[in-house]
Amino acid sequence: MAAKYVYYFGGGKADGRSEMQDLLGGKGANLAEMTNIQLPVPAGFTISTDVCTQFYQNDGHYPESLEREVEKAVEKIEKAMGRKFGDTKDPLLLSIRSGARVSMPGMMDTVLNLGLNWETVIGLASKSGDDRFAFDCYRRFVQMYGDVVLGLGPETKDDIDPFEEILAAKKNEAGTEKDIDLGVDDLKDLVERYKSMIRERTGVEFPDNPKEQLWKAIGAVFHSWNNDRANAYRKLNDIPGEWGTAVNVQSMVFGNLGDDSGTGVAFTRNPATGENAFYGEYLMKAQGEDVVAGIRTPQPINTEQKGDSDLQSLEEEMPEIYRELVEIRKKLEDHYGDMQDLEFTIQHGRLWILQTRAGKRTGFAAIRIAVDMVREGRISKEEALARIEPEQLNQLLRPVFDPEERRSAVIGGRLLAKGINAGPGAATGKVVFNAADSEEWAGRGEEVILVRIETSPEDIRGMSVASGILTSMGGATSHAALVARQMGKVCVVGAKDLRIDYKKRQIVAGGKTVNEGDFISIDGITGEVIEGRIDTRPSEVLQVLFDGTLHRDDSVVYKDFAELMSWAAGIKTMGVRANADRPDQASKAVAFGAEGIGLCRTEHMFFEEERIDAFREMILASDEEGRRAALAKLLPMQKADFKGIFEAMGDRPVTVRTLDPPLHEFLPHEDAEIEDLAGKMGIEKRQLEEKIGMLKEANPMLGHRGCRLGIVYPEITEMQARAVFEAACELVKEGENPKPEIMIPLVGDLRELELQVEVVRRAAEEVQKEMGVEIDFLVGTMIEIPRAALTADRIAASAEFFSFGTNDLTQTTFGVSRDDAGKFLNDYIEKGIWKDDPFQRIDRDGVGELVKMGVVKGRDTKPDLKVGICGEHGGEPSSIMFCAEIGLDYVSCSPFRVPIAIIAAAQAAMKKA
Amino acid sequence: MAAKYVYYFGGGKADGRSEMQDLLGGKGANLAEMTNIQLPVPAGFTISTDVCTQFYQNDGHYPESLEREVEKAVEKIEKAMGRKFGDTKDPLLLSIRSGARVSMPGMMDTVLNLGLNWETVIGLASKSGDDRFAFDCYRRFVQMYGDVVLGLGPETKDDIDPFEEILAAKKNEAGTEKDIDLGVDDLKDLVERYKSMIRERTGVEFPDNPKEQLWKAIGAVFHSWNNDRANAYRKLNDIPGEWGTAVNVQSMVFGNLGDDSGTGVAFTRNPATGENAFYGEYLMKAQGEDVVAGIRTPQPINTEQKGDSDLQSLEEEMPEIYRELVEIRKKLEDHYGDMQDLEFTIQHGRLWILQTRAGKRTGFAAIRIAVDMVREGRISKEEALARIEPEQLNQLLRPVFDPEERRSAVIGGRLLAKGINAGPGAATGKVVFNAADSEEWAGRGEEVILVRIETSPEDIRGMSVASGILTSMGGATSHAALVARQMGKVCVVGAKDLRIDYKKRQIVAGGKTVNEGDFISIDGITGEVIEGRIDTRPSEVLQVLFDGTLHRDDSVVYKDFAELMSWAAGIKTMGVRANADRPDQASKAVAFGAEGIGLCRTEHMFFEEERIDAFREMILASDEEGRRAALAKLLPMQKADFKGIFEAMGDRPVTVRTLDPPLHEFLPHEDAEIEDLAGKMGIEKRQLEEKIGMLKEANPMLGHRGCRLGIVYPEITEMQARAVFEAACELVKEGENPKPEIMIPLVGDLRELELQVEVVRRAAEEVQKEMGVEIDFLVGTMIEIPRAALTADRIAASAEFFSFGTNDLTQTTFGVSRDDAGKFLNDYIEKGIWKDDPFQRIDRDGVGELVKMGVVKGRDTKPDLKVGICGEHGGEPSSIMFCAEIGLDYVSCSPFRVPIAIIAAAQAAMKKA
Repeated sequence: MAAKYVYYFGGGKADGRSEMQDLLGGKGANLAEMTNIQLPVPAGFTISTDVCTQFYQNDGHYPESLEREVEKAVEKIEKAMGRKFGDTKDPLLLSIRSGARVSMPGMMDTVLNLGLNWETVIGLASKSGDDRFAFDCYRRFVQMYGDVVLGLGPETKDDIDPFEEILAAKKNEAGTEKDIDLGVDDLKDLVERYKSMIRERTGVEFPDNPKEQLWKAIGAVFHSWNNDRANAYRKLNDIPGEWGTAVNVQSMVFGNLGDDSGTGVAFTRNPATGENAFYGEYLMKAQGEDVVAGIRTPQPINTEQKGDSDLQSLEEEMPEIYRELVEIRKKLEDHYGDMQDLEFTIQHGRLWILQTRAGKRTGFAAIRIAVDMVREGRISKEEALARIEPEQLNQLLRPVFDPEERRSAVIGGRLLAKGINAGPGAATGKVVFNAADSEEWAGRGEEVILVRIETSPEDIRGMSVASGILTSMGGATSHAALVARQMGKVCVVGAKDLRIDYKKRQIVAGGKTVNEGDFISIDGITGEVIEGRIDTRPSEVLQVLFDGTLHRDDSVVYKDFAELMSWAAGIKTMGVRANADRPDQASKAVAFGAEGIGLCRTEHMFFEEERIDAFREMILASDEEGRRAALAKLLPMQKADFKGIFEAMGDRPVTVRTLDPPLHEFLPHEDAEIEDLAGKMGIEKRQLEEKIGMLKEANPMLGHRGCRLGIVYPEITEMQARAVFEAACELVKEGENPKPEIMIPLVGDLRELELQVEVVRRAAEEVQKEMGVEIDFLVGTMIEIPRAALTADRIAASAEFFSFGTNDLTQTTFGVSRDDAGKFLNDYIEKGIWKDDPFQRIDRDGVGELVKMGVVKGRDTKPDLKVGICGEHGGEPSSIMFCAEIGLDYVSCSPFRVPIAIIAAAQAAMKKA
Repeated sequence: MAAKYVYYFGGGKADGRSEMQDLLGGKGANLAEMTNIQLPVPAGFTISTDVCTQFYQNDGHYPESLEREVEKAVEKIEKAMGRKFGDTKDPLLLSIRSGARVSMPGMMDTVLNLGLNWETVIGLASKSGDDRFAFDCYRRFVQMYGDVVLGLGPETKDDIDPFEEILAAKKNEAGTEKDIDLGVDDLKDLVERYKSMIRERTGVEFPDNPKEQLWKAIGAVFHSWNNDRANAYRKLNDIPGEWGTAVNVQSMVFGNLGDDSGTGVAFTRNPATGENAFYGEYLMKAQGEDVVAGIRTPQPINTEQKGDSDLQSLEEEMPEIYRELVEIRKKLEDHYGDMQDLEFTIQHGRLWILQTRAGKRTGFAAIRIAVDMVREGRISKEEALARIEPEQLNQLLRPVFDPEERRSAVIGGRLLAKGINAGPGAATGKVVFNAADSEEWAGRGEEVILVRIETSPEDIRGMSVASGILTSMGGATSHAALVARQMGKVCVVGAKDLRIDYKKRQIVAGGKTVNEGDFISIDGITGEVIEGRIDTRPSEVLQVLFDGTLHRDDSVVYKDFAELMSWAAGIKTMGVRANADRPDQASKAVAFGAEGIGLCRTEHMFFEEERIDAFREMILASDEEGRRAALAKLLPMQKADFKGIFEAMGDRPVTVRTLDPPLHEFLPHEDAEIEDLAGKMGIEKRQLEEKIGMLKEANPMLGHRGCRLGIVYPEITEMQARAVFEAACELVKEGENPKPEIMIPLVGDLRELELQVEVVRRAAEEVQKEMGVEIDFLVGTMIEIPRAALTADRIAASAEFFSFGTNDLTQTTFGVSRDDAGKFLNDYIEKGIWKDDPFQRIDRDGVGELVKMGVVKGRDTKPDLKVGICGEHGGEPSSIMFCAEIGLDYVSCSPFRVPIAIIAAAQAAMKKA
């Protein structure tokens, strides 16, 4: 049997099948499939990838039988479409497209309207009754052919496009700036000018023979497989050169051939809400690009969607065609089992489907569609979960801008800057420039956006009362971003175009000035910073879960969300905990499904008014006695905090980290505050300044912090351990069952851990004895500097659990401070050094290697060692996948990312199984 | 044959031999050896470690034959010494000591004068003619026995010693504070009081029977093998419990029995200079402790040593004894092949040798003795090299204080503080508090000590003209220490007790105030900071090598040094390079034997007057064009610098690192300077302040520096590469053969390196083309952050060499900033977390693991990859040993450490062979 190289599709029957992707490429296989399920696909054929391979093996020669096969296939197209290729009366026009197994930039894309010349264009003109259309088709064809087949287009963005140059000159002569103003004669002249330029540059005449056009275009596709850009892309993405590309040749259909022609796009379900309703837009007498161009207002496809508008729907205008589309909609969902996005064209009253693919959708729609399809029996729960992008859940949790208001603000030029989307959701409020004002203004009921160049731990209270946080510096894991995410605050960071002036209390950006008290709106999903007020809508899920302003039965969104979460919880095998420092955060985490607290940062507790004084007294004490006196004041407060958190968490484990940040972070920096504190302490301002100066560090990130504090001042660790155990003992007496896990930060050497564990265990014994109660507790360590991972086998000897602090581990492994990375992050992403921000997505090659090493070494020493992660990566889906792969017991993330983590963990479990 | 448990020594014959250390313990074997080489060792015997083992196996029972063996051995001692144990006329007294294979704290140490009771003490008194001596012996014996045998001494330093309590009470009653004022009756009373206290506490009588005393003391030694402290020490040092301890019983001799008795210590060669001359001190009518106590002035042992002093020498006072000692001196050196330190006692005109061991010596002496002994044919060159502590070479290179002046200053209370010895040598000069003053004062010929809280790169010029550098903050690898070591400056850092006040221009320490312009003296070998002027002596080696003020033939020190270095250079297999940034440093490095430059820091070049302006212009430029304009000004200057360095290095390789520090380090910080710069730039001060503010970083160590600068501003790398290649090409044209190696810092990912290598190679090609010359060059990278080591296999693909930057690698692996580590370093050393400062001695478990990984992975990709180290560790002997173990090709260190590194590298090669 002779080899087959050409695969025809059309008239409800295709030579190929969807599984033949290797041979037909993705596009070709898809066209075959669409044809096979009886969609009215314009006829065409695919030249297989084998031809490409032979083309290169045989010095650019095709297999002998190819020419005959192509001729026959063209004849079949002519028959199916009722037109002839090269016919001067009613010419069949073709499109030519490349199509490899995977979509590949750098290769020849598309040539449309192939088959036109000075004779056939007359036929097209008379058949369409639209001369301008016909000659514009011709003009476009020559340009496209010249560009992609003859290679005369610009090579880079900065090059001059010779066709655009000619077009611009022509428009200049015609005294217009728009293509649409060019008349038939202008277009004819343009074709001539294009052709002579082509003649000059290539030395040969533009081919008028349609067959010659076709073969040259096919050859151009095969050649494009091996051009520099395609080769570079393949090398970067490990695509073998042997795969080759297929060529797709398909008949053109036009939606602008008269009153019985039109074009449109449709979604089998609503892509915004996910509602199970047919949804789409169309225009009569139009080509595909007209629908999206926004010059004419598209019409709704059905009456349901039309609502109150005056526009006529397709259902009304062409009921037959609409019915046909409705049937196709059902066929598509039955066949693909997912919401589809289709493009259709009506040519002289006949419906053609040009493309169908899984439709893009909002997070709301993604969840609703997935859950509905399970209910409809179309897909399994697992399939539904697999289809959710975990990040999409964010949209269900955060307030959003009213879309219309936002749109008009952006069009109206009120967009000030775009920063990094650090805390999803939308917020609007009055601008304040410091934490104190934020508290004061919020205290009197104002909605405020706290605007800072960057934030520090002292700003926490101001941040917690603001509606949103905006900074001009810092990256996605800067202090502002971290705290905002944990608090569930809307946050945009690193909006570099903003010039923030604290003294003048104003922001300058793009020539505009925003003063203190002016309204500003920020979108933590898009990173947009917009001048003025834009109304926001609250999230239904939060209304149900926390506000109580909406009953769960009244919210479809909530019910779908809850159902999906329950499936995920049932499937996942890895634990999901939350990072939470306060009882209210703990309660939220539990509501979201957290199974424990993986990181409770005790230092955040010290910033409240009455505590900060005692804490500063401790820092500034000159000896242990002084420190102990101040710590004694803090003990009951810390104990109360822990009690609240333990109560919120019930019998779920709570990992409490001992004091971590360098002490100078707790001291005042501004003159007035220093004077005030000196007064309180009864010392001279100068003395205090000196002390503060002595605590200053060149690189606080690598300074006197973490367990290094507890090593030098064991009394701090002792007080904190005491507070934890006293709280726990009291609860046990009250019949509760708290599970504290004490975690020592920044350990780099077994001995450090041993010394701190000793202090903690001594406190535990004393408290348990004093209170006559036994506590079920663990003592473990963070693994957050490379040395800890490298010596994890030793460290494990003294640890009951490991928790990877991948924020700090990323900083030290890369030697990059996340607060300073903003200075080069963009260059690093642009130049392809970092594929992602390593502070957002775990760096598997470096940081991941150390994490793996830590797990393996730790479990070498203690096979049942409990291992988790509490860096920001614990809430990022691809990083969670990594955690599952290397066998972590749990991930921990900010409360608002718990649902995301649960979905990701379920996906990881399914992938593993 | 029955087992033998007791090994007698005495009268020139011993049962044991030096090789029997396992059986006799170190001390026992040594006593046997001394006896065997005919030294007059007081007779005694050793009970073997076998007895200890059996003692524990048999519930504290001794082997049956032991008692008889001991009795016989005691008899032999009595015979040899002409006295009888327990004799009431002329009693033989014994000392009892433990002695394991290795010396071990925690075990019973020593009981002296055993054999005394109320009867024998009378014999001792009459025989010595000194009642007070006899009863003081008795008093001491009871106290020592009570303490170590009966265990009544204090357990910790804080415990009260019951014997001292009684002694103190007695002195109180006697109305004196000194033991020496107690009379014979007081001493008798003390013995009684001690004994009754012992009776009270133990319930038994103090044993008067000498034999009982002996057996109880032997038992106490064996028991002490298994006490808590000994067990803890063994566990910590991996000493098996089965080893057991031996017991050494030896007859006592006394140097205070009359005018024909005496005691002394001697060195077979001068321990300060190494001169081959017998050297020692003695006192007649004295015990060993009197010689060192400093109450009486000891006499010289020979006329040569006596010089102009009035003291009589042993040579004059007891010529026979002296002759005997001279013979012993020869015997010792012949036998041990090293300079010995011996203790001797003359008892009634008879010479006894109590101990001999390798003598402690200065660096000068160490080298002179080693080289002399090779010349004398006593030892091989290898043996000579093995005996040198590489660090001792420092003493030959640095100026030192006049020892007498220093001593009187310290005794006179002029010691202000002790800091970390960061740059060896002694310096004296007037105090200045900033770099500008340092330059100004030095410019007018003053010797200055630059005193700063800490230094920064801006201080470099001021540092380079100062005689010494003193800081109150920072550790051994702070900026001040690093720069000082490279410049070969005397430097003391982290002298915390100094309160430096820039405004008042004064130092306050220990109640004293040192003002600007006052003299101060610092010793970078001891870390001492001394008020006032102390004369220094220059190093002979430097006078010969650099100053030309001394001819090599006139300096024994230089000749010995040069000879030793030539041996080392011939033996070592690993290369030794220097870190040098300027031609003068390069020349010094070559003079010291460097085989290349392993690190040339280009940034130091930017601080000179004319350059800093152009460099700042570059930093503050708002676009690439502006940066290029400023860089064009810098190019000829950098080129000239490189040319100078290449010239100094000849055809030795020179590794040039591209710009490394964050740009803000080059900007002014002080108001006046900022105003000045703004004026020069023609912008407003406020604008400049804003720019400076924008460049500020939270953690500069982890900020925008290293190759991150070259990635964002490739034009900087381009200019630097151009400067290197233009300089090299010009030299090639002049007939030279420069070997530049360009090194990219702070690489963490292959792509970073690729991008920078591309820039460098492009510049190389262009320059070579322009100049029509070919250059032999390499392009490589530093491995100085964990991620680079973890992904070294990939990075090696683009690197022609690796150079480990272990300073930064230590900072990132530990997560510790060396500038801030001072805050907890002391606690970490004290608490045993760090055995050494990891910035001084490479941390093998963590940082070393990464270095090893980097080497293995790098060579997996490129088997012939050249690998070196250029961190400070490259000049530290034990780290150099590590580098040799893991197969590095070279180490690089500051020029003044090159000789040290060469010795260490030779030792490493010998160890490997």
